Amino acid sequence: MQKVKESDLDEILAVHEGGKINVASNAPIKDCDTLSRVYTPGVARVCKAIEAEPALAQKYTIAGNTVAIVTDGTAVLGLGDIGPLAGLPVMEGKAALFREFGGVNAFPVLLNTKDTDKIVETILHIAPTFAGINLEDISAPRCFEIERRLKARLNIPVFHDDQHGTAVVTLAGLLNALKVVNKTIEKVKIVINGAGAAGVAIARLLLTFGARQITLCDREGAIYAGRAGLNPEKTVMAGLTNQEKLSGPVHEILAGQDVFIGVSARDVLTPAAVESMNEGSIVFAMANPDPEIRPELIAGAAAVIATGRSDYPNQINNVLCFPGMFKGAFAARATDITQAMCLAAARAIADCVAAKDLRPDNIIPSVFDKNVAEHVAQAVAEAWRKYGKSDQVDVL
Amino acid sequence: MQKVKESDLDEILAVHEGGKINVASNAPIKDCDTLSRVYTPGVARVCKAIEAEPALAQKYTIAGNTVAIVTDGTAVLGLGDIGPLAGLPVMEGKAALFREFGGVNAFPVLLNTKDTDKIVETILHIAPTFAGINLEDISAPRCFEIERRLKARLNIPVFHDDQHGTAVVTLAGLLNALKVVNKTIEKVKIVINGAGAAGVAIARLLLTFGARQITLCDREGAIYAGRAGLNPEKTVMAGLTNQEKLSGPVHEILAGQDVFIGVSARDVLTPAAVESMNEGSIVFAMANPDPEIRPELIAGAAAVIATGRSDYPNQINNVLCFPGMFKGAFAARATDITQAMCLAAARAIADCVAAKDLRPDNIIPSVFDKNVAEHVAQAVAEAWRKYGKSDQVDVL
Repeated sequence: MQKVKESDLDEILAVHEGGKINVASNAPIKDCDTLSRVYTPGVARVCKAIEAEPALAQKYTIAGNTVAIVTDGTAVLGLGDIGPLAGLPVMEGKAALFREFGGVNAFPVLLNTKDTDKIVETILHIAPTFAGINLEDISAPRCFEIERRLKARLNIPVFHDDQHGTAVVTLAGLLNALKVVNKTIEKVKIVINGAGAAGVAIARLLLTFGARQITLCDREGAIYAGRAGLNPEKTVMAGLTNQEKLSGPVHEILAGQDVFIGVSARDVLTPAAVESMNEGSIVFAMANPDPEIRPELIAGAAAVIATGRSDYPNQINNVLCFPGMFKGAFAARATDITQAMCLAAARAIADCVAAKDLRPDNIIPSVFDKNVAEHVAQAVAEAWRKYGKSDQVDVL
Repeated sequence: MQKVKESDLDEILAVHEGGKINVASNAPIKDCDTLSRVYTPGVARVCKAIEAEPALAQKYTIAGNTVAIVTDGTAVLGLGDIGPLAGLPVMEGKAALFREFGGVNAFPVLLNTKDTDKIVETILHIAPTFAGINLEDISAPRCFEIERRLKARLNIPVFHDDQHGTAVVTLAGLLNALKVVNKTIEKVKIVINGAGAAGVAIARLLLTFGARQITLCDREGAIYAGRAGLNPEKTVMAGLTNQEKLSGPVHEILAGQDVFIGVSARDVLTPAAVESMNEGSIVFAMANPDPEIRPELIAGAAAVIATGRSDYPNQINNVLCFPGMFKGAFAARATDITQAMCLAAARAIADCVAAKDLRPDNIIPSVFDKNVAEHVAQAVAEAWRKYGKSDQVDVL
């Protein structure tokens, strides 16, 4: 499955040498005049101005345009708990993408602790440098509590990308896929396989957007109210989903469903299960790096197929969301990232594929479409200006 | 005294717009191949390699070449406790200088707490991203304890620049000034005015280097063993200095002294006091932005005059030290910054002024002499390789 050849390892290592990002000076410091403006004594003027009017820091420092990419390294890609240092290449890659696509500064904050209280307190203590917090690769269920507590305490956007970034791009892809198969979100039956950070967030966003029939599955199969051994998050989700009380493994409950969304593990899906779905089925097999099922195995069975990979059509990749999400939040001086902003971002991404170009193998814009981040930023900023922190959102 | 004209404020603000640093991507991400190497799936290879061998993070991430510039904003320049956000322009300026002169990444960490325990714990929790910690503008006496505790707990260099950076450049200047007046450090009588972070560190470094007669003064005058109301740090220093038990205000005890080192406040020194010093007197009036005495007032009275300012000769500026100090420490993979490294740095800076060029108005290299950082780096790395953490240093 892995398309990156062994022989590429040297090339991969070469681009990582010295790290993938650097902290650069905006202007060369070559003479005394420059030095005295950038540093002492001139800098004191700017310090005093900000002391008198803290909001000026937005304009005259990086504090208005900088994201902390925070991780404890407990859930890095599909690699699991490899620790924060081993996760750093991912955080640097993300920081590079924030720069390239969003024009935003992003800096990795690696946490030497997995303790929820200590993580929350540490982030609160280092918050002043940052205009936003991007939580990354923190394992469930701690990620839910950490995000909730930080959102309650900070008046800057806090965004767990593994949850909400994934949910936004998934919804974006689904909106266009539904158009291709001529179905509506209110009427389709959706199975989400994987009930960690991403699965739960996808379910919540789809519900907010109008989906009515969702079944969430974990390793033990469908989650339903009353199932033994559910953690608090899954218990809540059981109350919001699976009204039919389906039970059993995912490949059994797929019969008669319209949409499969996988944020689980490689090869957990069989061609037979996909064939048991309704006509015009949609399969998003987004496990990374290897999907739940190889697209070539279901080429005839599913109407629309998407993965997280760049070497198949329809790549559902968070980079379509996070740079524009923070860019827009910063532009609007948003103090939070709301469900309304996530919905707006999803719509903006979906709209980047023109109606005339919609095809089963073209439901989502390319990650290299530089317009996407700007569209997302504008939509997100507008959603904040329109709805603020309100949960009452007119989604349609 | 302030030579930066009012009319320059617009220019100063202009260079600060959007901040003075940015987090940049080392390579453009323009196609799928690059993306798959920089980010998923290729990045997973590097993560796994680091998980298996953590030392590889030095080579393949920023963790081997990145400094945290940590402040709580309690002692910013001469402005006092203006808070971390108002101190950010200074931290950004410093980060820009780290990049320009040392080729080192540096990123501001602004602390939302002044509590010593919390500061120490916060830094420990975010340490993995960093190869070194530069403490900055944290008020005494907390800065001493914070530095001591971090040095004990971390195996990366921890350096409080207001202490040791200032001490290094002061010693560098003093070494050359003594050559100009043909005196030796063992024999001169030295008064240091200011017993905060900088004054204490200067006293300690000069003692390590062989100075025998130092008197440290605070706002209440000379510090001597048994003086009432000394804090713990000053009590220790009283035991190491002022064997003669001088007492009284600084302008009175200067009579018969050879060297005045000011890290205190503007205009605290009088021409008469300088005139009472020995023949061939050395006056380092380093208060920022305005010195302890205006050089033009003592042009005839002192043999060598230095300040912290760029608009007078002999600018004693920390930028001569910190970029090379960290560059050298990183090159040698030093796990600490020792007095031996500080001595080596001071000598390296002093040696950047060739013997033939030494003059009363040319005792210290220009801050724009790009060779300085490299010289310092090499000397510091050599000192680490030679002495390691040992306190037993053959200084001469």
